[in-house]
Amino acid sequence: MTKKQYTLGVDFGTLSARAVLLRLDDGVEVAEATVAYPHGVMDRVLPSGKRLPPQFALQYPNDYLFALRETVRGVLQKASASASEIAGIGIDFTACTLLAVDADGKPLCDREAFLDEPLSYALLWKHHGAQEYADRMNRVAEARGEDWLRFIGGKISSESMFPKILQILKEAPSVYAAADRFTEAGDWIVRLLTGKDLHSRNIAGYKAQYVSSDYPSEEYLCAVDAGLRGLVGTKVSREVRSLTEVTLQVSEEGETLSGLAKGTPLALAMIDAQAAIPALNVTRAGELLAVIGTSACYIIHSNERHDVPCVFGAAKDAILPGLYTYEAGQAGLGDSFDWFVQNAVPAEYVRQASEQGMGIHAYLREKAERLKPGESGLLAMDWLNGDRSLKNDGLSSMILGLTVQTRPEEIYRALIEATAYGARRIAEDFEANGIPVRSICATGGIARKDPMMMQIYADVTGREVRVGGTGQAGARGSAILGAVAGGIFRDLGEAARFFAMEDHAIYRPNPSAKAVYDLLYREYRTLYEQFGKEDGVLCRLNRMRNQDL
Amino acid sequence: MTKKQYTLGVDFGTLSARAVLLRLDDGVEVAEATVAYPHGVMDRVLPSGKRLPPQFALQYPNDYLFALRETVRGVLQKASASASEIAGIGIDFTACTLLAVDADGKPLCDREAFLDEPLSYALLWKHHGAQEYADRMNRVAEARGEDWLRFIGGKISSESMFPKILQILKEAPSVYAAADRFTEAGDWIVRLLTGKDLHSRNIAGYKAQYVSSDYPSEEYLCAVDAGLRGLVGTKVSREVRSLTEVTLQVSEEGETLSGLAKGTPLALAMIDAQAAIPALNVTRAGELLAVIGTSACYIIHSNERHDVPCVFGAAKDAILPGLYTYEAGQAGLGDSFDWFVQNAVPAEYVRQASEQGMGIHAYLREKAERLKPGESGLLAMDWLNGDRSLKNDGLSSMILGLTVQTRPEEIYRALIEATAYGARRIAEDFEANGIPVRSICATGGIARKDPMMMQIYADVTGREVRVGGTGQAGARGSAILGAVAGGIFRDLGEAARFFAMEDHAIYRPNPSAKAVYDLLYREYRTLYEQFGKEDGVLCRLNRMRNQDL
Repeated sequence: MTKKQYTLGVDFGTLSARAVLLRLDDGVEVAEATVAYPHGVMDRVLPSGKRLPPQFALQYPNDYLFALRETVRGVLQKASASASEIAGIGIDFTACTLLAVDADGKPLCDREAFLDEPLSYALLWKHHGAQEYADRMNRVAEARGEDWLRFIGGKISSESMFPKILQILKEAPSVYAAADRFTEAGDWIVRLLTGKDLHSRNIAGYKAQYVSSDYPSEEYLCAVDAGLRGLVGTKVSREVRSLTEVTLQVSEEGETLSGLAKGTPLALAMIDAQAAIPALNVTRAGELLAVIGTSACYIIHSNERHDVPCVFGAAKDAILPGLYTYEAGQAGLGDSFDWFVQNAVPAEYVRQASEQGMGIHAYLREKAERLKPGESGLLAMDWLNGDRSLKNDGLSSMILGLTVQTRPEEIYRALIEATAYGARRIAEDFEANGIPVRSICATGGIARKDPMMMQIYADVTGREVRVGGTGQAGARGSAILGAVAGGIFRDLGEAARFFAMEDHAIYRPNPSAKAVYDLLYREYRTLYEQFGKEDGVLCRLNRMRNQDL
Repeated sequence: MTKKQYTLGVDFGTLSARAVLLRLDDGVEVAEATVAYPHGVMDRVLPSGKRLPPQFALQYPNDYLFALRETVRGVLQKASASASEIAGIGIDFTACTLLAVDADGKPLCDREAFLDEPLSYALLWKHHGAQEYADRMNRVAEARGEDWLRFIGGKISSESMFPKILQILKEAPSVYAAADRFTEAGDWIVRLLTGKDLHSRNIAGYKAQYVSSDYPSEEYLCAVDAGLRGLVGTKVSREVRSLTEVTLQVSEEGETLSGLAKGTPLALAMIDAQAAIPALNVTRAGELLAVIGTSACYIIHSNERHDVPCVFGAAKDAILPGLYTYEAGQAGLGDSFDWFVQNAVPAEYVRQASEQGMGIHAYLREKAERLKPGESGLLAMDWLNGDRSLKNDGLSSMILGLTVQTRPEEIYRALIEATAYGARRIAEDFEANGIPVRSICATGGIARKDPMMMQIYADVTGREVRVGGTGQAGARGSAILGAVAGGIFRDLGEAARFFAMEDHAIYRPNPSAKAVYDLLYREYRTLYEQFGKEDGVLCRLNRMRNQDL
């Protein structure tokens, strides 16, 4: 028998999939491969040329299979390894990324009849076409006083599963009727590999309101729309399982599809952001995991249930047995800085950066680093892409303190500081509701590339910030899960400790900077309460923007 | 005797002087000449190399003489005219631009002993080193309930005469002691040309609180600082005269200095912005004159005294006999748009503009013109350079409604709209206090170059906006005054009617745009009240910027 030397993780992101192969002996990453989805994100037209409504964001399911096969081939080739040397496999996926499949698991979008039907494709996590259905679900849940609503932060997001299904029911009833199953893309990949049609408890917990061992009740769903009667248990699987609760293995068909070896153990799919939990060994209460990318996700564990207003997702046993895990977030982070760079940085700066052989972010950062806290007189909100804590869709951002002396690097720094205020507010919301936040573990490209930002996070939050050792939290976290599925470790906590890498860097609060930021944060907090209101000026401006005066 | 064919106006601006020669027969401008001041604005170093404190803005008085001589020579040469053909001369000058002179009228900065003393030079209107002295004057005036304080808008500006003199007394006592006279630069030029040492009532009214026939009282000035005892009547002239009240003529020394002909009649000096009043024939109550440039000045006449909170200057008989004339203003206008263009327009836009052979302002305007009111969802305040109505020095600006979809032209338009909201607020403040504003007459380079902005002004204010016919309001207004001094017209009103030019353009409010702007203006007004407060967040941010936590 071949020696099982490796564990494999595959991270299915928004634009590409990335696989890593870790050596079981010493945890070292021996190969990595990234493959983009051929159709990327479809937000303007379908492959047929049909135009999409605004807010739509779709994917072509076969792209996932293509990327899986190619990344597996890539890592095996680079490591000169064979599939049979893999002890176990974990995958993580964006969620809720939903598709309708037939009884054989085939996507409905592959049917001739549905080629032109947008809602027969995979509805990507950031598909925002279902907002009105989410609104309706929220109104009904509030009216009925559903207990789970408070636990998940008071609002079902339009990105979650039921609003997307409801959109299909109302806007593409033929797809709804033809669907044998609505499935998360992550669960669908597991089904293709193993033949088992399960719903990952990790994903169901956060994306399908699967709280305390059940979905929202049939009564509730019928109150939302009578057409949803019977949905759960037929088109939505009741077979909800924790990540390594059942023993799954790659089937013969799975081997053919993927190049993985038949019989290799496999875990259920994780949500992509949550893969950072094992990857960075954030497996105990008290440490806030900040996954910093285009947007930011803040994850924390607790031994008890607490209802925290800022969260947008909460679940028990969804990742680590016995723990409640809460997710809060910022809708705009890296994309805010990118917006600034693309829309508001003068030509002279671009020229200077290029002359000095620097990227524009690095050039701005070098200038911004020289500023003292408070020196610019600027204060910005972190609402350029809305807000995930207040669940107020009409929010937009604001910058205060602008003068004709204001320089671009000052605004850049103010935008970074705004995200740090947002992180502090989330940490304070957790603490105010019974969940202590003793320190922060940050991960994501920005966290590694921008020491200034991490120092600002430490200064603003008054907490130690460690930047985790891995830059590939997603795929690495999945590989760690794969090692548990493969039976190499007893549980995810043990595996996470074994694979933990040395921290990339640690930032400690500077007391004098913190003193100034305490004053600025107080202003931020006041503006947050005042301008975050549903009936505030920002919401009125938003209605005017939509010509809905 | 030579035929008197012309009237001459010389406009002394911040960076240069400009002269025009108008033909008396038909009012046509036959020649124009502009000459920059060799030393410009000294705000970093003196000619000696000595560094200046921040907030200082000085000029070298001999530059004014140089520019006078050269512009006079220039217009005479271009018109092939001789100085003896000039029937009368008017000048206008920035104010308060103050210098200390000896008994012969020589600037103290020309003395060896004072070469390194900044306060012996001309303190330019925008010299802001005297703020603490203005603050003290305001505290004392408020405590004593000085009646004139309400008339002038509740605050003495640090740009006016007494704070500047007080700064000299406290920070350069040897200059104070050596000064025979503190004189406005405009009055100084008249003195050099005519030998008469008078204080223009026009300038004294606005810049030295010369309200109802006297300066602030000796008791008040002594309460501010005992060192000011005896100032008025010795170092500050009590000989205050209206613009054409006395007959002044160019003296022999004046001829030698300037190239003007001995005996030519001359009016007293006007404030530069006020020269637009005759130039644009805004000589009756009800029309608001908007002088739109780097900053904006709003001038209106009334038959009665009214105390209007937003004004920063008010005087009676200062320009037109029997009328009260009020000045309000916006501290930032053209400079706000320039700030935006220099600091916040992306390289791609600059490249596109250049490819299309357009200036960047024109390029942005072309894009901004396509936007509907309210479409951007943005709302900005017009406080990038502070605010002149609230007299709150700690103000800075803010922009609301930003998202990652916000484009540069949307912000550009929002900044323009903000200045229109500011204009409407000033108009409303006049009306609420008894001074009707029926229409607007706009002048200044931006008013002529930006039809979009003028249409926005009409839409936002709900009033007809005419853009005056002359693009050279300053020098032309002075030349009109010169024709009165030369006895060609009975008074300034008559002269203004004769020289009035056809309007450049007229803009009328569009009802549907106005309806949206009414909503946006309501938001602006609320933010204005809330964020304009002395104890508001913007003032706290300002203190942090000054590291005065």
